[in-house]
Amino acid sequence: MKGYRKMDLDVEKAAEFLELPSSRLSEIIEKGNLKQNWDEYNRIYRFEGHAPQLEDGSVLIDNSGSFELIRGFPKIKRAMLLEPALKNNFSDLTSVAVEEKMNGYNIRVVDYKGELIAFTRSGHVCPYSTERVRNFLDRDFFEEHPDIVVYGEMTGPENPYVQKHVYGIESLDLFVFDMRYKDTGKALEIHRRRKLAEKYGFNQVNLLGEFNIKEAPVRITNIIRELGKIGHEGVVIKDPKMVLQPIKYTCSESNRSDLQQAFKFYNEAGRDYLYSRVIREGFQSHEWEENEEDFRKRCLLLGESILRPMKETIAKVQSGERISDDFIIRVRNKSVIYKFRSYLERFGLHVVLGKIEKKGNEYTAEFRKINKSTNDKTLAMLEGQLWS
Amino acid sequence: MKGYRKMDLDVEKAAEFLELPSSRLSEIIEKGNLKQNWDEYNRIYRFEGHAPQLEDGSVLIDNSGSFELIRGFPKIKRAMLLEPALKNNFSDLTSVAVEEKMNGYNIRVVDYKGELIAFTRSGHVCPYSTERVRNFLDRDFFEEHPDIVVYGEMTGPENPYVQKHVYGIESLDLFVFDMRYKDTGKALEIHRRRKLAEKYGFNQVNLLGEFNIKEAPVRITNIIRELGKIGHEGVVIKDPKMVLQPIKYTCSESNRSDLQQAFKFYNEAGRDYLYSRVIREGFQSHEWEENEEDFRKRCLLLGESILRPMKETIAKVQSGERISDDFIIRVRNKSVIYKFRSYLERFGLHVVLGKIEKKGNEYTAEFRKINKSTNDKTLAMLEGQLWS
Repeated sequence: MKGYRKMDLDVEKAAEFLELPSSRLSEIIEKGNLKQNWDEYNRIYRFEGHAPQLEDGSVLIDNSGSFELIRGFPKIKRAMLLEPALKNNFSDLTSVAVEEKMNGYNIRVVDYKGELIAFTRSGHVCPYSTERVRNFLDRDFFEEHPDIVVYGEMTGPENPYVQKHVYGIESLDLFVFDMRYKDTGKALEIHRRRKLAEKYGFNQVNLLGEFNIKEAPVRITNIIRELGKIGHEGVVIKDPKMVLQPIKYTCSESNRSDLQQAFKFYNEAGRDYLYSRVIREGFQSHEWEENEEDFRKRCLLLGESILRPMKETIAKVQSGERISDDFIIRVRNKSVIYKFRSYLERFGLHVVLGKIEKKGNEYTAEFRKINKSTNDKTLAMLEGQLWS
Repeated sequence: MKGYRKMDLDVEKAAEFLELPSSRLSEIIEKGNLKQNWDEYNRIYRFEGHAPQLEDGSVLIDNSGSFELIRGFPKIKRAMLLEPALKNNFSDLTSVAVEEKMNGYNIRVVDYKGELIAFTRSGHVCPYSTERVRNFLDRDFFEEHPDIVVYGEMTGPENPYVQKHVYGIESLDLFVFDMRYKDTGKALEIHRRRKLAEKYGFNQVNLLGEFNIKEAPVRITNIIRELGKIGHEGVVIKDPKMVLQPIKYTCSESNRSDLQQAFKFYNEAGRDYLYSRVIREGFQSHEWEENEEDFRKRCLLLGESILRPMKETIAKVQSGERISDDFIIRVRNKSVIYKFRSYLERFGLHVVLGKIEKKGNEYTAEFRKINKSTNDKTLAMLEGQLWS
């Protein structure tokens, strides 16, 4: 049994709401798999580490004894070979809808005590995302649809996690890609969801087409080639009725861009993260029946996406600099800058807050995340220490 | 506490010999970190999983109550950047000796009840290696030096683990690279070891030179470039007196050759194994101050060593074949073929024994190791299953 902080939660009532035996919920709490949020959100709890029937990052909100459940993001599985994956998973459909998979970070938005709040994938209330969605989304929607959770991608260059300039966004924007009912997690049909989003003026991910299932492999392959050329990430292929599980598929350029970023911080990068991106290249090359010239081009680009950032990191550290992950956030309320810094520090990140500037009625703030592990390892090698 | 088989070992006596409290040895046994061998070698025990002060794979031999300890291979650490590593680790020396690191598998040889036996890195008695060393090594050495363990590399194409044709070896041969005293693990000085090996007609790894410490980085870099061109693995840089720990350094060609083999069986390959080989390329490219053209060549070759074998595996599985790791062994005594098959099966490997042929006074036997995980995963992807 791991240590845990005494919770304010009424376990009996919460268990009843979750339709779990209260002994089961107590067990989840004792294992540290239900965590309480802090500060003004301390009546919000998140599930971590595989609670039964609940996706990781599912959130339980305690409104003075009446509960709400915000289910976590259902994991979207990946096609390695597009054509067989479509055939095998969507054979009962006549058509599939293809929406763009944007490169940013996922959030879920709900109304909480009369204001919008944004949860990250893990179920934390992110202060930056929360401040932003209050600017991005019309609260009327949430008042009129209190039973719906909005799922979206936070995308753009002023982004703490994934900075992308390819979407023509100046700062940051939210693109809705899903709406689901609280409690059940059931998704709205695509056309209903897109209409609702349009009605309330929400940005949404591009609908790239709805294709007859037979044509879909060729059509989607063409889309992927085009998206790749402009540096976009990929697609999510969906049952228009949202009954079958969606499937994701990404561009080679996006896999390589991930590798570039990861090998800059080579000693921090997860081995599985690197492996999976390399593996995708092998399957796509096979499915696309590349000739020797195109194949060699893919090999060169793959090799470059690995070695170039790594070499740059070593050279930089040798020259006396230190590598870091730099980003900018933009807020209306200056105090959110400091709140966000504390938020990152709670995760054990080493963060340096740089210049704060006024931009119109907003503020930008520069952040540096220091990647201690890669800096230290590189320095050790340069000093002649041995690998292991 | 894990389950364990009752051992025949006299724990009190063994502990006394090992200079451990017997409660400590009991604990090691209870944790399953001392394993008993089987069949005619059932009085031989091997240490697994970090017993204190004992390298993994250290072997304890019980000669009816009098004990011998054969220490495991001391881990040889790796230089990522050659010049700083030499400066940092060998600054007290005037010169270093450079021996070739051959590509095969390591064994340790001792005399046991009047016959030679060969231990693998993990401390198992390998029946194939044991039969071979009886042909390769003169037993007189071991009778005259019962306190010395011979460490060598089993190299050549008729090899269950690493098949290499680059050394001009027809079948298999043993190349001595170390001799150490039993019990203490202290190594013989290089010149003494090489003279002894020569006297008894043992093959040994090439001594590529003894270099002044100031010249060593350039000289070794040149050696590495030349070894790479002929597909050899690399070098081990040693204190001639064998007091300081040796350092290994390998050719880019060898890193890539490892990757080629690993990505053929991409779903079996260890993530850390892949990662470490890629990382070496980044450091070498930095240290060699490659121009853009050479750098791009390295990137291309790296990419090809990853994607080409993977693509071939997918194509092969699609065409209905199954991938496998095929090798040949050659023995004098036919029964060793079956003994070796049982030996591999004990490790849970799926092995198919193929054609057995008489070659002069010896027999060759074909083996196939079936790589179930990569075959199954590839087939699943071809059938349209999703990655995860």
